[in-house]
Amino acid sequence: MNQVDQITIVGTGLLGSSCGLALRASGFGGRIVGVSRLIDTARRAQELGCVDEGGNELGPPVRESQLVIIAIPLSRYEPLLKELAQHDHNALVMTDVGSTKERVCDLAHRLLPVPQRFVGSHPMAGGEQHGPDAARADLFHGKPCVITPSPDTQRLALNTVEALWTKLQMRLLRMTPRQHDLDVARISHLPHAVAALMVELAVKGGGMDLASTGFRDTTRVASGDPQIWLDIFTTNRQPLVEMIDAFAGQLSGLRQALLEGRDTEILQWLRSNKQARDGWVKQFQRP
Amino acid sequence: MNQVDQITIVGTGLLGSSCGLALRASGFGGRIVGVSRLIDTARRAQELGCVDEGGNELGPPVRESQLVIIAIPLSRYEPLLKELAQHDHNALVMTDVGSTKERVCDLAHRLLPVPQRFVGSHPMAGGEQHGPDAARADLFHGKPCVITPSPDTQRLALNTVEALWTKLQMRLLRMTPRQHDLDVARISHLPHAVAALMVELAVKGGGMDLASTGFRDTTRVASGDPQIWLDIFTTNRQPLVEMIDAFAGQLSGLRQALLEGRDTEILQWLRSNKQARDGWVKQFQRP
Repeated sequence: MNQVDQITIVGTGLLGSSCGLALRASGFGGRIVGVSRLIDTARRAQELGCVDEGGNELGPPVRESQLVIIAIPLSRYEPLLKELAQHDHNALVMTDVGSTKERVCDLAHRLLPVPQRFVGSHPMAGGEQHGPDAARADLFHGKPCVITPSPDTQRLALNTVEALWTKLQMRLLRMTPRQHDLDVARISHLPHAVAALMVELAVKGGGMDLASTGFRDTTRVASGDPQIWLDIFTTNRQPLVEMIDAFAGQLSGLRQALLEGRDTEILQWLRSNKQARDGWVKQFQRP
Repeated sequence: MNQVDQITIVGTGLLGSSCGLALRASGFGGRIVGVSRLIDTARRAQELGCVDEGGNELGPPVRESQLVIIAIPLSRYEPLLKELAQHDHNALVMTDVGSTKERVCDLAHRLLPVPQRFVGSHPMAGGEQHGPDAARADLFHGKPCVITPSPDTQRLALNTVEALWTKLQMRLLRMTPRQHDLDVARISHLPHAVAALMVELAVKGGGMDLASTGFRDTTRVASGDPQIWLDIFTTNRQPLVEMIDAFAGQLSGLRQALLEGRDTEILQWLRSNKQARDGWVKQFQRP
C-alpha cells in the first residue's frame, strides 16, 4: 500500500476492529482511525489497540486518509456513502467488507462523485460474536476475499485494495458483483437460512434435549446477528430464492430415493459429498 | 455397576474404544475385553489402552462378562445378535450404541432368548473421525444418552445400563424407540442430509473457493462415514422422510416471505431462532 499514510475504518465492530488489529500486526506503519456512530464503541476499539484513534466524526479523518474501509451493516450504506461523497478527494480510495456486492456497487456508482476509486470487497471471515472485544488480528488469515472491480475502476484504487487484503494474508478472488452474490447465496446465505430452519424445526417439534455436537455445529451460524442477516437476505433476495429453489429440488430427489429404496445410489451420493468436502477442508485449512 | 467384573465391547471403533477409555478413566476396576471382526483393530485398541485385551472371538469373553456393549454399524446387528444368542447366560446384560432404536429393539426382541436383559441405548456423541486412534476418554462427558427400555425390561438390566452411562458422565433420557427415532431424525439425521445436500449444491453450482468457516461448520457432519450414515438413513427411513417434508414446508414459507418482502417477520424469525439456539448452547455447554 504505497502512499497510504492514514486509513479510516468506518464501523468498529468485529470486522472493522479486526482490520485495525490485523493491519497493525502486518507491520502497517501509518495511522489508523476508527469512526463509529456510537462513540463508546469507537473509544473501546481505541482502548483495545484496534485503532490509533476512535471517534464519531467522519469528515476530518477521511480528508486526511488515502484509504477508507467501510465496515458497517448494509442497511446503513446509503447515508454513509452520501456523507463520504462530501469529504471525497482525489487521493482517496474506498472499499468495504459487505456480504453482498451488486447493490453495494450500484449504490457506490450512484452516490460517489468518482466511483472509479471505489472497489467492492468481501473478506469471507467473521463469527457469531460482535463488537471490538471480539476482534482478532488473525481473523482474515488464509481466508478468501472477493474483490468486485468494474471495467472502469482506477488501477491505483484496485492495487491499493488488493494490497490491503494481501497484507492481511487473505486469498484474493476477482469476480463480478452478480457472480459473487450467486456464489455467496449458495455457500453462505442458504446455509444460514437452513441453519435457522433446523433450529425452528427442533424448537417446534421437540428433541433439543437430545441435540449434541452435530446439531451445535450445523446450526452455529443461526446465532449470528439477526439484523446483519436480515440485511444480507434482503440485499440478496433473488439469488437466495434461486438457491432455495435449487435446494428444494435436491431435497425432493433425496426423499424419492429414500422412499424407493435406492440405497446404493444414496451411499454413492454420501461418498461423493464426503470426498468433495474432505478435499475442500484440506485446501481451506492449508496455512 | 454392582456385580460387573468383566465388560465385552463388541466393535473397537471410535465409540467402542472411547467406551473402554472412559470406563477406565471413571475408575471401573474390572476387565474390559474388545472384540472386532478385524483382529488388527482389536489389537490396536489394546495397544492404545482402550481395552485390556483385544481379539476377534466373541464366545469366550461374552461367557465371562456381565455386560456386553454393542458398538458396530447397524447393518451388522442381525448376525451379531444371532451369535450373541448362542453365548447368552443368565447374568448377562446387553446394550448398544446404535443411532436408531426401533429396528434395533425389534431385532433384539426377535433374536435374543431373553430380550428383557437387552436395553437399547444411544449415547449422543461422536465425530467424523473413526477407529481406535480417534478414541477419547471424555467423548461422552456431559452429552445426552437416550435409553429405550420396554415395559418388560428387567430392573437389573436397566439399572446396569443406566449405571454404565452415568459412570461415563452422560445425561440420561428415557423414551420409547419410536419417539427417539423421530427426535433424532429431526435434530441429527435431517441435519446430516441437509449438510450433504449443501455440499452437493456447492460442488455442482460452484463457489467452494469462496467458502469459509460458516460453510465448514454447517457441513461438518457430511464428512461422516458414508456406510454408517447409509445404515442410519435406511433404518430410520420413514421418520427421516417425515422430517424432510416438514423442512420442505418451512423452506417454502421462508421463500414466500422473502418474495413478498415480509422483512419484519423474517427479522423476528431470525431473532427467535438465535435466541432458542443461544439458550440451548448455554445449557449444552454447561459442565
